[in-house]
Amino acid sequence: MNRIMRLQQQVEYIREIDKLKSVLRQSLLMDASRQENDAEHTWHLAVMAVLLQEYAKEPLSDMTRILKMLLIHDIVEIDAGDTFAYDEKGYLDKREREERAANRIFGLLPPDQKEEMLELWKEFESERTAESRYAAAIDRLQPLLHNYYTEGAAWRKHGVKSSQVLARISKLSEVVPELHEYASGLIHDAVVKGYLAE
Amino acid sequence: MNRIMRLQQQVEYIREIDKLKSVLRQSLLMDASRQENDAEHTWHLAVMAVLLQEYAKEPLSDMTRILKMLLIHDIVEIDAGDTFAYDEKGYLDKREREERAANRIFGLLPPDQKEEMLELWKEFESERTAESRYAAAIDRLQPLLHNYYTEGAAWRKHGVKSSQVLARISKLSEVVPELHEYASGLIHDAVVKGYLAE
Ligand SMILES: [Ca+2]
Repeated sequence: MNRIMRLQQQVEYIREIDKLKSVLRQSLLMDASRQENDAEHTWHLAVMAVLLQEYAKEPLSDMTRILKMLLIHDIVEIDAGDTFAYDEKGYLDKREREERAANRIFGLLPPDQKEEMLELWKEFESERTAESRYAAAIDRLQPLLHNYYTEGAAWRKHGVKSSQVLARISKLSEVVPELHEYASGLIHDAVVKGYLAE
Repeated sequence: MNRIMRLQQQVEYIREIDKLKSVLRQSLLMDASRQENDAEHTWHLAVMAVLLQEYAKEPLSDMTRILKMLLIHDIVEIDAGDTFAYDEKGYLDKREREERAANRIFGLLPPDQKEEMLELWKEFESERTAESRYAAAIDRLQPLLHNYYTEGAAWRKHGVKSSQVLARISKLSEVVPELHEYASGLIHDAVVKGYLAE
């Protein structure tokens, strides 16, 4: 493949993923002004991953890989849509929908970069490395902060219970124990304040 | 400082920077549906920085630092606002407004992290390292793609001329020569198509 074709494929991908800015999540912005989109959510996660690495229990050997995983982890939602964390039906075919999306979207890239992105996406989903477990933990923590600071907007809208949120963050206890403790405290406080059903 | 206070400062910062999602830029999304915000813009830059590193003329020794610089480079705009690239008046006091903002916002973090973020921000602004020159080049390329794919929406709105856009991207010729050539071609094409004044 010549250099110009390679660059055109890269630009086509850069253009395609602009659509992530229009994939809406259940979380509201912290000022509750509107729903958050996947692109800005991803930016927030990446900043958090840099700032909170001291809480990782296992040593993290490769921050670049953590950031790359986070940067692309939601791109499949351009085709597959955002599946709300507490939507049990949505989870049934989530994997299949997302794999199709990964192949189509990363497939816009030159083959070597397609492979790299697919590997990063699978690593993130698998949680089989310290880096992917840490990245996934950050992805569970951020919506909790958004829910807490919007007085449980998405929780209340969907009738989510504290036991579900506690289950959702339970993995944090192994990966980032202090953040798990902090998050558990927020959930307890959210129940006391009426943001979240017991 | 005890661990809990440290974490509270970090969370306070994470909460504060959520406001970057509400700082609007002149660029429209590539589907022209609305203005882009700084948080989603930053995500897009970070993805591009990973994908396009092969075009850097100087060796890039530290992708993590490039990503960290990009992730925080616009945070000052929470206080200072986005200054349009072709707004000469806005540029007069930009530096001063942004320095105040950097001190306030990064100052929410624990001192060691405040220092790190200030250093990263200054490095990005200075363009005195290969990594900051590359990051800044990506920050110049992305709005060009947005303008091109929206048929020059922000260019036409502000009466921007091709000579201004060419000057804006001139540094790319040293940093990422092939991307400079590609970008120059888009600008030429934009003039031909009437997206951009000669
Ligand atoms: Ca800027």
